[in-house]
Amino acid sequence: MKKVYILLAEGFETIEALAPVDILRRCGIEVVTLSISNSKKVVSSQDIPVEADKLLSSEDFLDGDMIVLPGGSPGYQNLSKSSKVIELSKKYLDYPDKFLGAICAAPSILESAGFLKGRKIICHYSVKDHIKEGILVKEKVVQDGNLITASGAGLGIDFGLKLAEVLVGAEKVEEVKKIMTII
Amino acid sequence: MKKVYILLAEGFETIEALAPVDILRRCGIEVVTLSISNSKKVVSSQDIPVEADKLLSSEDFLDGDMIVLPGGSPGYQNLSKSSKVIELSKKYLDYPDKFLGAICAAPSILESAGFLKGRKIICHYSVKDHIKEGILVKEKVVQDGNLITASGAGLGIDFGLKLAEVLVGAEKVEEVKKIMTII
Repeated sequence: MKKVYILLAEGFETIEALAPVDILRRCGIEVVTLSISNSKKVVSSQDIPVEADKLLSSEDFLDGDMIVLPGGSPGYQNLSKSSKVIELSKKYLDYPDKFLGAICAAPSILESAGFLKGRKIICHYSVKDHIKEGILVKEKVVQDGNLITASGAGLGIDFGLKLAEVLVGAEKVEEVKKIMTII
Repeated sequence: MKKVYILLAEGFETIEALAPVDILRRCGIEVVTLSISNSKKVVSSQDIPVEADKLLSSEDFLDGDMIVLPGGSPGYQNLSKSSKVIELSKKYLDYPDKFLGAICAAPSILESAGFLKGRKIICHYSVKDHIKEGILVKEKVVQDGNLITASGAGLGIDFGLKLAEVLVGAEKVEEVKKIMTII
């Protein structure tokens, strides 16, 4: 079974984090939400308190197939301040069989860490000026190798579907889209 | 300020409940999530534990402009078993200045309670055969007077945008759509 870790920081964007959890679990993928603080309770940028499955500090979490960085403010700033988030992002990007998903302002975390050189990405317009080494593409969801990025909360469902597709294939995703009445 | 109550039962569909909370709050609307059980902790049908703002049993909640019934299984069955949910739905539907939103299988709760006579609706295909008095319309999001319905989880964002539009108008919703990178 494929395994995905979704990183939750205080102020994560609700749809960007939870639509992927919903869709990936519907696709039969094991999803584990990880709080980057020392509390499992994490409050979204729209003031919804959610209980994460585990604490990021509790294990090394290198056994996953994908990690996901949601945006949201101050969620993405909080992610960017965590050395373990940066270290884990590097390891998942460096490993060609693993994937990294980042949405909204979260791709700028990867830019700041120096991981976007020559990588095609999309991010939220509010952080576009921050992108120097990454190559901005005018699409709503962008895949470049093992990196998947999306522009913002309104694309949370499309982002989740793309993350699922690279892990379990288009056929399974089409099934789930029917159940979700997307098609 | 407009006020919306979103009813959370064990097994609520994550996107159907929380995308509306996200979007309505982004639109400056006061949103209060209500757990229909005796615990504020409610677990979604995709196993995400969320903390509701209040218990449905704690007040009469007749001061709102809208109530929202998410789908999800067994969420919608749990909503349908609550006499207070049925009573509140009737009061909001009977009052022309108030609204009721129901998505996925939740419109079938209103059918069972006898509230859909002559009302145009859409619901999830799995409960369509249950609709006798309501008039099924082939659209993804349907407004008939003060009743707004939608087909399923993949329409959670569109549903949230429609709920916001009837409360605060299209101009505010367009602003929020830009920030969410929908347009």
